[in-house]
Amino acid sequence: MLLEQTCAAIEPLDGGAIERARRHQADLTKPHGALGQLEALSVQLAGITSELAPLLRQPTIVVAAADHGVAAEGVSAYPASVTAQMVANFLAGGAAVNVLARAAGAELLIVDAGVLTPTASDAPIFRAERLGAGTGNLAHGPAMTIDQARAALERGIAIAADLAAGGADLIALGEMGIANTTAAACLTAFLAGAPAASVTGRGTGIDDAHLRRKVAIVERAVARLDPAIEPLALLAAVGGFEIGVLAGVVLGAAARRLPVVVDGFITSAAALLAQRLAPLAIEFCIAAHVGAEPGHRIALERLGLRPLLALELRLGEGSGAALAIPLVRAAARIPGEMATFGSAGVDGPADER
Amino acid sequence: MLLEQTCAAIEPLDGGAIERARRHQADLTKPHGALGQLEALSVQLAGITSELAPLLRQPTIVVAAADHGVAAEGVSAYPASVTAQMVANFLAGGAAVNVLARAAGAELLIVDAGVLTPTASDAPIFRAERLGAGTGNLAHGPAMTIDQARAALERGIAIAADLAAGGADLIALGEMGIANTTAAACLTAFLAGAPAASVTGRGTGIDDAHLRRKVAIVERAVARLDPAIEPLALLAAVGGFEIGVLAGVVLGAAARRLPVVVDGFITSAAALLAQRLAPLAIEFCIAAHVGAEPGHRIALERLGLRPLLALELRLGEGSGAALAIPLVRAAARIPGEMATFGSAGVDGPADER
Repeated sequence: MLLEQTCAAIEPLDGGAIERARRHQADLTKPHGALGQLEALSVQLAGITSELAPLLRQPTIVVAAADHGVAAEGVSAYPASVTAQMVANFLAGGAAVNVLARAAGAELLIVDAGVLTPTASDAPIFRAERLGAGTGNLAHGPAMTIDQARAALERGIAIAADLAAGGADLIALGEMGIANTTAAACLTAFLAGAPAASVTGRGTGIDDAHLRRKVAIVERAVARLDPAIEPLALLAAVGGFEIGVLAGVVLGAAARRLPVVVDGFITSAAALLAQRLAPLAIEFCIAAHVGAEPGHRIALERLGLRPLLALELRLGEGSGAALAIPLVRAAARIPGEMATFGSAGVDGPADER
Repeated sequence: MLLEQTCAAIEPLDGGAIERARRHQADLTKPHGALGQLEALSVQLAGITSELAPLLRQPTIVVAAADHGVAAEGVSAYPASVTAQMVANFLAGGAAVNVLARAAGAELLIVDAGVLTPTASDAPIFRAERLGAGTGNLAHGPAMTIDQARAALERGIAIAADLAAGGADLIALGEMGIANTTAAACLTAFLAGAPAASVTGRGTGIDDAHLRRKVAIVERAVARLDPAIEPLALLAAVGGFEIGVLAGVVLGAAARRLPVVVDGFITSAAALLAQRLAPLAIEFCIAAHVGAEPGHRIALERLGLRPLLALELRLGEGSGAALAIPLVRAAARIPGEMATFGSAGVDGPADER
C-alpha cells in the first residue's frame, strides 16, 4: 500500500509560488529572461518548495547499486565483479562521484539494492536494501518477481522519507550496476515507444559485435512485453533492483516536495518508470545532463526535461548530478540575493520608462 | 613595449604535463573517456599549470565596464546611464554576477575602463582604469585613438599581473557596457570573417526595427576597415575600452600561465582580439558557455573553444563564467582525488585483462 499511498500523495507544483517567482524574476536587475534556463529552474524550485529562494543546504546523492543477470550475455565491457568493487570504492571515497560530491558540497548515500556480493559495512553513508543477489537474466526470463519489484519501489520511497526526515532538501540520483544500460534500454524502449536500436548504446565501451548482440537482446525482451503491462510487471520483467529503488526515491521525494536531480541514462529510465506510476512526480525532477548514451536524450524528451549540462559524460554514479548541483543552488540563490531595479536605482529598458 | 613583451612571453602548454595527465586519466576508476569534456578540461589545466591537479583556490572574475558612443544610435534597449548604475550595483553586491561569484566561491574585481560617469569608490574590489568617458561613436568615426587602444590592452595586462601576484590562480572575464554587443559584433564579423547579420543580435532585447538598424551600423563599420588592419587599429576603430582591457587580461594571464574562463559574446570578442595579437593565448582559455547572442557561437568556433554550458544566458557580467567555475574546479580535483584501478582493486575491461 505504501506505493499506492505515495503516488496518490504527489500533488502538482505550487502555482501561486510559481507566479510570484516569475514576477520577482522580472524585477531583478537584468534584462528579462537574460539568465535563460537558470530562470526557469529558479521558478521550478519555487513551485516545488513554495519558497522564493530555497536554501538547499543539504543535497544528498543516492547511489543505488545492483547486479544484473543479463551481464552473463556479454553486454558490458566490464565483469560483474566490478559492481561490488565499485561499492567498496564509493565507501573508500575514491570514485568520481565521491570527488564530485565533495566538490559540490553534497552528501552521499550508497545503497546496496542487490549486488552479487554483499558489502559488510557499518559506514553511515551505507545502507543495505538487498532485494536479491543480482537479478535474473532478462534475456531468458523475468529479472525479478512482482513482489521484489514492489519491494524495490517501496524501499526507495522509504529511503527518500528517511533522507527528508534527516534534513535533505534536494535528492540526486546515482547508480552502479554492470550491464544496467541493458535494463535501462528495455525500459526506455518500452516507456518512450522507441526502437531498441535507438536506445541501446555502448555503455562502458563495448565494440560493434557486442553492441549488435545487446540490441538483439533488448529487442527480444521488449517484444515479449504485453503492450498493456503494468509498471510493476514491467520492472519485474527487465529490472533492475537499483532502477526500482531509484524510481521509488523519485516518488518518495516528490511526495515530500523535494527537488530530484536526475543523472544519466539509467536514472532517467528510473524516472520514466516513476512517471508511469505517477506523472506528477516528474514536475519535481531536474535533468542534470544529457550524456553520450543514445537513449538518454530519448528518455529526457519523454520525461519533458531539459538538461542543464551536455559534457558527453557516460559514467553514471550520479557524476552528472553532482556536477549540476552547484547550478541548481545558484539558481535558487538568485531571487533572494539579487537587487531589484527599484532597490538598486537602475533604469529599466527605454520602452518601459 | 609591455604589449609586445607580453605577447612574446606566451609559450605553448606544457606537453609533458599533458601527456602525464592523459596517462593518469586512463588509470582512474572509470571507463576510458567516461567523464567526457571534463577529462579534456582536466588535461588542459595540467598543460596550463604543469600540475596534475591544480588547486584553483582563488578564482577571480574581472568585470570591466565602459560606455560606448554608438549607444546614441539606439542599438540597446537600455540607456547608457545603466552602465554606471550597474557598476554601483556590482559594488553593492546586488547584481547577478555578485550572487553567482559568491555561489562559486570566486572573488570579483570591478574595473571602470571608461564609464561615462566616474565611480567614486575605494572599495578593495574596485579599480579605476579609465581610458576616457565612453568611446566615440563607431557609426561616425573611430571609437578611440591608437594610443588609447594600446593603453587599454596594457592596463589589462597589468591587471592580470597584479591578480597573479595577489594569488589569483584562475581569471574569469566579465563585462558591462550598454551597446557593447555592437562593438563585439564588429570585432567578431571582422576577426571571424562572418557576415554582420550573422553576428549581430538583440543584446539586452531590442525589437526588429532596432535590430535592422544595428546590423546596418555593424555592416558599415566593418566595410570601412582595411582588410590588413593591425589589431590596435581595429580596436581603435570599433572599441570598446572594456574589450581592450579584457583582451589585455587574456594576454597577461596567458603569459603568467593562468587559466582564463571566457564568459559571453563580448568577452569572446575580447579573446578573438587577443588571439590576433598572440594565437597561443587561446590555449589558456576555457569557454564557460555558449549564450543566446548569435555571434557567440561563431566567435567560439573561431577561437576553437568548446563551451561547458549552454543555458541560453544573455546577461554578460561574467555570469556564465561564474557558473562554469565549479565545473573547472571539479575537473581539476578529479586527478588528485580519484582512486586508480590498481589502488582500489577494481577490475578493468575484459579485453584488457
